[in-house]
Amino acid sequence: MSLLVAIRGWTPEPWIARLRQHVPQLAVVSLDDPFDQAAVRYAATWKHPPGALAGLPNLKAVFSLGAGVDHVLRDPALPRVPVARVVDADLTHRMVEYVVWHCLALLRQARRYARQQAEHIWLDDRGQPSAREVRVGIMGLGVMGAAAAQALVALGFDVAGWSRTPRTLPQVASYAGQAELPAFLARTDLLVVLLPHTPETLGIISTPLLRGLARDGRLGAPALINAGRGGLQREVDLLACLADGTLGHVVLDVFETEQLPTDSPLWDHPKVTLTPHNAAVSDPDAICALIGRQIDRLERGLPLEHEVDVARGY
Amino acid sequence: MSLLVAIRGWTPEPWIARLRQHVPQLAVVSLDDPFDQAAVRYAATWKHPPGALAGLPNLKAVFSLGAGVDHVLRDPALPRVPVARVVDADLTHRMVEYVVWHCLALLRQARRYARQQAEHIWLDDRGQPSAREVRVGIMGLGVMGAAAAQALVALGFDVAGWSRTPRTLPQVASYAGQAELPAFLARTDLLVVLLPHTPETLGIISTPLLRGLARDGRLGAPALINAGRGGLQREVDLLACLADGTLGHVVLDVFETEQLPTDSPLWDHPKVTLTPHNAAVSDPDAICALIGRQIDRLERGLPLEHEVDVARGY
Repeated sequence: MSLLVAIRGWTPEPWIARLRQHVPQLAVVSLDDPFDQAAVRYAATWKHPPGALAGLPNLKAVFSLGAGVDHVLRDPALPRVPVARVVDADLTHRMVEYVVWHCLALLRQARRYARQQAEHIWLDDRGQPSAREVRVGIMGLGVMGAAAAQALVALGFDVAGWSRTPRTLPQVASYAGQAELPAFLARTDLLVVLLPHTPETLGIISTPLLRGLARDGRLGAPALINAGRGGLQREVDLLACLADGTLGHVVLDVFETEQLPTDSPLWDHPKVTLTPHNAAVSDPDAICALIGRQIDRLERGLPLEHEVDVARGY
Repeated sequence: MSLLVAIRGWTPEPWIARLRQHVPQLAVVSLDDPFDQAAVRYAATWKHPPGALAGLPNLKAVFSLGAGVDHVLRDPALPRVPVARVVDADLTHRMVEYVVWHCLALLRQARRYARQQAEHIWLDDRGQPSAREVRVGIMGLGVMGAAAAQALVALGFDVAGWSRTPRTLPQVASYAGQAELPAFLARTDLLVVLLPHTPETLGIISTPLLRGLARDGRLGAPALINAGRGGLQREVDLLACLADGTLGHVVLDVFETEQLPTDSPLWDHPKVTLTPHNAAVSDPDAICALIGRQIDRLERGLPLEHEVDVARGY
């Protein structure tokens, strides 16, 4: 019996080595070498080529090697077996670091003070609002969104969350569904997007949505932080909204095309902060250990954990 | 009876107006205009000229208008009356914002990614440590230091604190006194200084101290955040330590001379982040309301709150 490692875009060798360590009871094989299709019982994937998991008669489950599962589900030939996503405390902590860092940098006007430093200008803004005067709105209240919300509440921010179905979190104002989206946006100064990438959320961060953000905030204009998926945003709309003042600043860790093309106008825009899709980088050891535990569970007849609802897309 | 407002460096008028509102039972007079010295019962001060509070026969108490009291105590002609400092939740929250912002910006290599953005470089550091792999050491565990420590613990940082006398805080390693300073420094990657300015702490942030910081940290070289008082640091030493690699980065909100002279080499140093002494800007309304409450207490025969130990200096 074997575990198939199906990776595109990342170097597979370190993953293969780690999985051999964490799943010693199975042979670990790779898409890049010949392997016995009938022996494959599990697959661990990151952006596998569509169809690569078809024709595996004894496949029992598929494991994503990163936080999202859109790269798995977009395969039209995906076998009808359970798919598990990564829920890893380390990944969540790193996303919280990223979201809190950028909310504080926006609150405390990091760009303004960096510019003043460059110009040797000593000028304090006596109108600096405190966190409690700034409203953060988090779209997507999964494990990461919920953890980010709690960390922001602890720092004093006025936090609300929006999700497909209602979620209750302490000290976080709750909004759910399309009907409550306008009210959520209207009370949001800093919009943090941690939604999954599904057919419903594709391109959701667009001009009509951004025009719904608060116009009466203490920071002048609202700002966007997208650390979810690049497919959620329309970059042409982001640029238009920065140009007409609908947005005051944009922080992006994800892009419609990754790597971000070197000629994208986002790179040099003075109101854009970019990072190379590393808001929450998977710790390969933690993920491989999780896959090892999942396989143990399945082999002992226990149900898979963190199973994706394939129809819903996350 | 009157309250004397003794301010240098700030515009006194807004303070006078606010104190009139919060202390309606007293006349509010200013150093800048003639006033009856015998009528002055209280003084509210920010960097008053030495001697300005002498010759007030009926003075009962002095209130600092900002977080520190060193500007009050350095007056050799300060009358022997109780001195109260500002303990204001808003001020504490703002300091926590500042410390957490910069600890996260240092952890997440904000400068590196800003430089990569400027150069259109998509390059992720797969060696990015998480907060739990980085050791923060806070010198000074007063109200602000303790609050910053707790916020950093909540984000996963490995936090220790050093203070003159032992302090116990949940999940914070405690070090106290000169004897334990070397051990504290040796386990510190990010040094956060929130000490009061006293004769004992003057110039404490110097080359010998900085050479004691951890050399085995995940961020390459240790970094310093001073949001306490400028008099704590020797800027010539900071520049030398940045030059020889003893320090990897310095974040300063305070300076030996403020405003920082425009020809200071700190402005343009690529490893220095400056802010204009606004890490925690007093909310004037909150401070004036606090002075109003203190005066009420004294007039009702209750003891002053947040009284400074003049001998100790804070």
